[in-house]
Amino acid sequence: MTKLTLAAANTLIEAAFKKAAEAGMKPLTVVVLDAGGHPKAFQKQDGSSMLRYEIAAGKAYGALAIGMDSRALEPMAKDRPHFIEGLNAVSGGRIVPVPGGVLIKDSAGEILGAVGITGDTSDNDELCAFAGIEAAGFMQK
Amino acid sequence: MTKLTLAAANTLIEAAFKKAAEAGMKPLTVVVLDAGGHPKAFQKQDGSSMLRYEIAAGKAYGALAIGMDSRALEPMAKDRPHFIEGLNAVSGGRIVPVPGGVLIKDSAGEILGAVGITGDTSDNDELCAFAGIEAAGFMQK
Amino acid sequence: MTKLTLAAANTLIEAAFKKAAEAGMKPLTVVVLDAGGHPKAFQKQDGSSMLRYEIAAGKAYGALAIGMDSRALEPMAKDRPHFIEGLNAVSGGRIVPVPGGVLIKDSAGEILGAVGITGDTSDNDELCAFAGIEAAGFMQK
Amino acid sequence: MTKLTLAAANTLIEAAFKKAAEAGMKPLTVVVLDAGGHPKAFQKQDGSSMLRYEIAAGKAYGALAIGMDSRALEPMAKDRPHFIEGLNAVSGGRIVPVPGGVLIKDSAGEILGAVGITGDTSDNDELCAFAGIEAAGFMQK
Repeated sequence: MTKLTLAAANTLIEAAFKKAAEAGMKPLTVVVLDAGGHPKAFQKQDGSSMLRYEIAAGKAYGALAIGMDSRALEPMAKDRPHFIEGLNAVSGGRIVPVPGGVLIKDSAGEILGAVGITGDTSDNDELCAFAGIEAAGFMQK
Repeated sequence: MTKLTLAAANTLIEAAFKKAAEAGMKPLTVVVLDAGGHPKAFQKQDGSSMLRYEIAAGKAYGALAIGMDSRALEPMAKDRPHFIEGLNAVSGGRIVPVPGGVLIKDSAGEILGAVGITGDTSDNDELCAFAGIEAAGFMQK
Repeated sequence: MTKLTLAAANTLIEAAFKKAAEAGMKPLTVVVLDAGGHPKAFQKQDGSSMLRYEIAAGKAYGALAIGMDSRALEPMAKDRPHFIEGLNAVSGGRIVPVPGGVLIKDSAGEILGAVGITGDTSDNDELCAFAGIEAAGFMQK
Repeated sequence: MTKLTLAAANTLIEAAFKKAAEAGMKPLTVVVLDAGGHPKAFQKQDGSSMLRYEIAAGKAYGALAIGMDSRALEPMAKDRPHFIEGLNAVSGGRIVPVPGGVLIKDSAGEILGAVGITGDTSDNDELCAFAGIEAAGFMQK
């Protein structure tokens, strides 16, 4: 895949939900942002809590902000909290620096967007992001 | 329908897209918010411009804010612009006062959420909202 | 009354609701702010739309901001919109410049707070504010 | 109870105040938010300090944000402060991660809203929340 079409984004979301269902995870919220950080598609499963859209988007936005999965933001937040706080300041408060935000790339390594997932543990959220990206024919590395 | 489930929200979005395709409309962006103004599902068709999520959500949020379809906000914006500006101020800038934001109700008239659509003319956007609401088994009056 | 106690604020709110019920008005939202603009008491009747707290508070805050009922803000918003926009800017977006926000004074004319009401027409909202202030033993002039 | 009516919210607040009075607690501030995080009712007892509305609402909003009592937010804030800071960023600064924010559920376990209380110790605030929820016929688990 070389374009983040709506069809591809929906495939990604469905595959993430499928992965979560198979593993017996909690209800998930999945958002796909394009390369400019703007939402392309989004679904929030029944039983998810109130602020899940913002959390999911905050992981994906954080990944796009620095060009690395949001997993990379967590040690930065621990070691240099002022940097993440600065990122939140200049982004207008749009970043949640925990795993679950994963870049969506094409086979040439170009960034097409990012997916953000929340609802289960951050590690599980990220696994579902990987599954979704693969199912939709994208790369995450 | 008495609950705004994810399945129902997705049905609503698909029906809105179908209506637009049949009528040869431009690419649409459709967002479904729950009764508290929080996103439940969202899809942006290929070819839509950058800020369409925010515009669609702004119509739906405006409808929920005052309990009337966003069509009712447009004459207010013309006759009493300071009121709509005040609404935008106290909502943190979340309202777009033009048609295309329609309340989603159950058969008892209770507000379950709102759909916001943008992409074609505001009148056409609203027609697609009506079609989606009907297809998903909800009421808009 | 010389103090805006919780008991007095609750009496004010109940009297505003009573006035509205007697006149067959729509469901109201009533907030009482203290002289510093901080909420003291608040009630939102069943059937009120989503953003009514913010609208009611926006009227009361606007009244306190300039020391006049929010009715005085409406002609300013029409004649000098840049002034109201400036007020909203410096207040962090907290002002809705339409009638329904009324100062609460003691018999010496000192400002003790303000009440903000929304739900029916702005004129009716204001009538309920007057009724509440009188019932609680305060002055509004 | 299956609906968070204004009557029920007022009953909840009165019962929380009664519990505090019986135990000789400090003046309390109690806010009831609906499931979408919007205020339904609120009272601040005489002698409470300036920012108590915001603190009480911040506990209740935090509970709704992640679908757990705000007590669960405190260890997160200690162990992963960047996560809570991220929550505050994406919520526009609306979360106070200490005990005293408790979910309001119906007998089927569905979240109807949340109550936030501040004024005494966080543990005591929470006890009053429990008392209010029970008195109003709701569940908190």
